[in-house]
Amino acid sequence: MKKIIALVEDQFDDLEFWYPVLRLKEENFEVHITAEKENQRYVGKYGVPVVSEYSFDKIDFDEYSGILIPGGWAPDKLRRYENVLKIVKGLYEQNKIIGQICHGPWVSISAGILNGKKVTSTPGIKDDIKNAGGEWFDKPFVLDGNIVSGRRPMDLPFYMREYIKKLKSI
Amino acid sequence: MKKIIALVEDQFDDLEFWYPVLRLKEENFEVHITAEKENQRYVGKYGVPVVSEYSFDKIDFDEYSGILIPGGWAPDKLRRYENVLKIVKGLYEQNKIIGQICHGPWVSISAGILNGKKVTSTPGIKDDIKNAGGEWFDKPFVLDGNIVSGRRPMDLPFYMREYIKKLKSI
Repeated sequence: MKKIIALVEDQFDDLEFWYPVLRLKEENFEVHITAEKENQRYVGKYGVPVVSEYSFDKIDFDEYSGILIPGGWAPDKLRRYENVLKIVKGLYEQNKIIGQICHGPWVSISAGILNGKKVTSTPGIKDDIKNAGGEWFDKPFVLDGNIVSGRRPMDLPFYMREYIKKLKSI
Repeated sequence: MKKIIALVEDQFDDLEFWYPVLRLKEENFEVHITAEKENQRYVGKYGVPVVSEYSFDKIDFDEYSGILIPGGWAPDKLRRYENVLKIVKGLYEQNKIIGQICHGPWVSISAGILNGKKVTSTPGIKDDIKNAGGEWFDKPFVLDGNIVSGRRPMDLPFYMREYIKKLKSI
C-alpha cells in the first residue's frame, strides 16, 4: 500500500486539504497527515479542523510515494520550515509525485523545484512562479513530470483525477 | 451522462456536502446543487460557502438518477419543505439512488422511506431511525436496496465508494 504525506498548517483551504486526503483513502492509499507537531489540532481558513498524525521533523520521507501541498494560507507558513523544504525537494528528486494546488506552489518555489516546470495555481501567485523559472498556465490542472498542480477548489475533481493516475503509474 | 441532485441548506456539514459533489464530478456525473432558491449563497456549519444552481420547487426529479442528502444541521431545515420530501420519496420509488450521511436520514424519515430499511447515521439520531421503522447500524456505510447511508465525515471515502458503485449499476 503506497503512503502519501498530506502537509498541513493553520489556515489551510478546507476543501483543498480534505478532498485529496479523503479521496486517496477512498482509493486505499495510506495518507499520513503531517505537520510541525504530531497530534495537534489545526484549523482551516473557514474553520474545518484536522488533527495531525505525524511531525515532519520525525518522518522518513524515503518511505513515501508522494506528497500533497494544500492551498489557503498554510503554504505561507509551511515554506518557512527547513524540514518541509527538504522533504519536498527530496521526494521530487526521487521522482515521487508532488501535488500542489492554489497557493501550494509557494512551498515548491522555496524548495527550488519549479525552474523550467509547467505549473498552474491561483492567479494570485503566477508572478512568483514565473520569477522562480516556472511556466504558468491558467488551467484546472497541469502535469509536468512528477509535479501535478491544480488551480483552485472547484478544480479539485480534475486535479485529483490526474494525481491519482500519476500515483498509480509509479 | 447521469444527473444527481445535491440538496443544500444553511449549516450543512462542509465536507459531507462538498466531498460527494466534487467526487461525482470527478467521475463525470452531472451534479445539480439544489436548494429552496436558485443562485443563492448558503454557508456550511464551519463556514465553507456554496451557491445553489437550481430550486427544488422547479426541477423535474424524473430526470435524475440519484440524490445526495448532506449532514450537519441542514437536514433539520430540508425536511420542512414539502417539495424536498416529494422528490426524495419520488426518487426512492423510482429506484434511483438515495445517498444520506450523518444527520441526512432525518429527511428520509420525513419522506417516509426508512421503514424496514438498514441504515447507518450519526449515533445521535439512531432513535429517530428506529422509531421510523429502520434498523440502525454503527458502521462506516450501509447499503440496503437503493439507499446508501454513511455515518460521519471521516467515513466519506467508504460511503462514496459505495454510492458511486451503486449509481453505476443502474
